Amino acid sequence: MALKSFIEVHPDSHFPIQNLPYGVFKPQPNSSPRPGVAIGDYVLDLSEIASAGLFDGPLLNNSDCFLQVRHSSLSTLSLLFRRRLSFRSQVEETTEPTLRDNAALRQKSLVPMNKVELLLPVAIGDYTDFFSSIHHTRNCGIMFRGPQNPVGENWYRLPIAYHGRASSVVISGTDIVRPRGQGHPIDGTPYFGPSLKVDFELEMASIVGPGNELGKSVDINNAADHIFGLVMMNDWSARDIQFWETVPLGPFLGKSFGTTISPWVVTLEALEPFACDAPKQDPPPLPYLTEKVSKNYDVSLEVHVKPAEHKDSSLVARSNLKHLYWTLTQQLAHHTINGCNLRPGDLLGTGTISGPDPDSLGCLLELTWNGEKELSWNGATRKYLEDGDEVILSGYCKGDGYTIGFGTCSGKVVPSPQ
Amino acid sequence: MALKSFIEVHPDSHFPIQNLPYGVFKPQPNSSPRPGVAIGDYVLDLSEIASAGLFDGPLLNNSDCFLQVRHSSLSTLSLLFRRRLSFRSQVEETTEPTLRDNAALRQKSLVPMNKVELLLPVAIGDYTDFFSSIHHTRNCGIMFRGPQNPVGENWYRLPIAYHGRASSVVISGTDIVRPRGQGHPIDGTPYFGPSLKVDFELEMASIVGPGNELGKSVDINNAADHIFGLVMMNDWSARDIQFWETVPLGPFLGKSFGTTISPWVVTLEALEPFACDAPKQDPPPLPYLTEKVSKNYDVSLEVHVKPAEHKDSSLVARSNLKHLYWTLTQQLAHHTINGCNLRPGDLLGTGTISGPDPDSLGCLLELTWNGEKELSWNGATRKYLEDGDEVILSGYCKGDGYTIGFGTCSGKVVPSPQ
Ligand SMILES: [Ca+2]
Ligand SMILES: [Ca+2]
Ligand SMILES: [Mg+2]
Ligand SMILES: [Mg+2]
Ligand code: NI
Repeated sequence: MALKSFIEVHPDSHFPIQNLPYGVFKPQPNSSPRPGVAIGDYVLDLSEIASAGLFDGPLLNNSDCFLQVRHSSLSTLSLLFRRRLSFRSQVEETTEPTLRDNAALRQKSLVPMNKVELLLPVAIGDYTDFFSSIHHTRNCGIMFRGPQNPVGENWYRLPIAYHGRASSVVISGTDIVRPRGQGHPIDGTPYFGPSLKVDFELEMASIVGPGNELGKSVDINNAADHIFGLVMMNDWSARDIQFWETVPLGPFLGKSFGTTISPWVVTLEALEPFACDAPKQDPPPLPYLTEKVSKNYDVSLEVHVKPAEHKDSSLVARSNLKHLYWTLTQQLAHHTINGCNLRPGDLLGTGTISGPDPDSLGCLLELTWNGEKELSWNGATRKYLEDGDEVILSGYCKGDGYTIGFGTCSGKVVPSPQ
Repeated sequence: MALKSFIEVHPDSHFPIQNLPYGVFKPQPNSSPRPGVAIGDYVLDLSEIASAGLFDGPLLNNSDCFLQVRHSSLSTLSLLFRRRLSFRSQVEETTEPTLRDNAALRQKSLVPMNKVELLLPVAIGDYTDFFSSIHHTRNCGIMFRGPQNPVGENWYRLPIAYHGRASSVVISGTDIVRPRGQGHPIDGTPYFGPSLKVDFELEMASIVGPGNELGKSVDINNAADHIFGLVMMNDWSARDIQFWETVPLGPFLGKSFGTTISPWVVTLEALEPFACDAPKQDPPPLPYLTEKVSKNYDVSLEVHVKPAEHKDSSLVARSNLKHLYWTLTQQLAHHTINGCNLRPGDLLGTGTISGPDPDSLGCLLELTWNGEKELSWNGATRKYLEDGDEVILSGYCKGDGYTIGFGTCSGKVVPSPQ
């Protein structure tokens, strides 16, 4: 039987009591940022709950983790998680009855979500982006390495990744300025100007909870304990800039102009009912990547685009987190095998999540085959994104009578500066 | 005539009054970190100077920038720099006479450097590593692309770079744990274990002062205003891990196990007397990379290694910052051309600074030609670094009767965990 809260939550809402994702918000334009939990159409202000003394368990009593927003507060939340006193159940058990019976507190601490400003949910120390969908990798390989040998020998041996740019990670709703930069030379001189190939990438990302010390790797079978939860992510990409700069050190300015994440961190615990088997890996991974239980999550993913000339958005692609070849835990364990330290709030993108079907491809590079085919969305034709186009990613899991969702991750492309 | 301070400074000291580099330190193991300035064998405690009310100019009056260590304090320092009221001359003019005549204040604020613990001088938001020495690039290219076409077509058009890992940037003196990881397969299965090819990379790095807003590029002719100063940097590299993982997204775990920087940020202003012409660039750079005055700095660089079995270190290579093809300002302007935002404290490595001569190569990869040749340092033979080996980088400029130096950037390789 589905859990129910005294707060009315529509069955299609992304934020029933089974979810309770973590975020950071400002109730008023001039208030200070504070942590909150989404429930139905409301945000529960955790700073008010903490001030009211409701967090009286051994871990949260007198902790200021809900009063301030910084690296260490996430670290405390993560501690809860690590000790299997989950964030979700703590909030639920300590606040439900008191809130229900205390109208004044309810008034202060439950803020309508449409009234608040949502901010980045964590201070991101480092952002890493993986490349873990075999479908995305194979498609890129066919385009750029040729059909004979599209996937590199190393790809099946380790979760390939690169360091991304943390400073330009922005919250859903932030406009994305079309980057300027160089492209491959046409008549001897490189192209320079606004990128002609601005793309989206449909991704999800782990938010690191407890970190690890420099020099000490995380064991694969403990890796889940280091993941606080997941967000949706759009790794905006300028393909012309990216392809010209990328040899030999990888993507740089083709990516660093902006990366959008969704505001609510959905805990792994809330996703647990939607866990599914990870794909069989052949060749079998090395021991440090071999997990006792290897799982993915069945999260339906959608890309909608609202072309500049339309009032409505069109569905552009559907995919699923379960298509990942390398699991989230393999990604995290691999990241630390060399002793690299993760810190609370670090962001680990999955890489573009493409599926096996033509309509399950997670970026325009694949959908238009690098501009060879034109797409038509309700009559708007595109090879890459135009100024004014808005991209909206969403993700959700359908439970029995409820939905665990991620809300949306959206952004609009605006023109380059002159 | 050389400037002189009332504090005795030996002519070989790296820290005469002409330098006054910025750092962060703890006077006692249990004190809180605070900003300081190196002068001779002393550290001037800026928090004491500020508490004494000595910073009474319009910019620093009542500013708490010397009382706390965080992003915003560097931002204030940077403001000084941007307004051409330099950090160096502010400290010098406001403190010299008062300090000289106030024994109690001198006692409190001048701490012997050998008594303090030096910490990272800035909170590093993002770390980027460039690839700007043509000698290093050509040598790597000959090894891995072949002698026909060692340097890619894009290299002469833009300062190639990749995002590095900020979390594992450590202060000089921190041990570096030998990373574990995968290497290229030998009999079908990848090597796994402690890296067999741990290397150093001789680099310098810019520390960003004032940042720029996301979406707004920094003009090349204003780029110097965004550089607070320079440090020495050792970009430790595990060549076996790096080469196996690097296609197609660039270096990742082969780098992210540790990067060492020197504690003192030397301002561009202190280096100005050692400015020299940058190399002529052919083809000429695109307009956004063309600067009115294009300069390098004549900074002598040395690599010493103390092999595990020796008590003394040996000189292993000598190079010079002036060998850079792409200037520090071109690096910074390029980094922002796509709208990427830099933040105060960001670290921009130059890439390995190799010169044209066989003894001016900045890493073992080049010096031993990826292990083909063995080096002998006073009888200790090496292809790559062994556990217990210590690498000491240093840099200095020789002025008329004084030296502007960077101190040292050192680290010892210690064994992998079992
Ligand atoms: Ca990506
Ligand atoms: Ca390097
Ligand atoms: Mg991006
Ligand atoms: Mg490094
Ligand atoms: Ni930070």
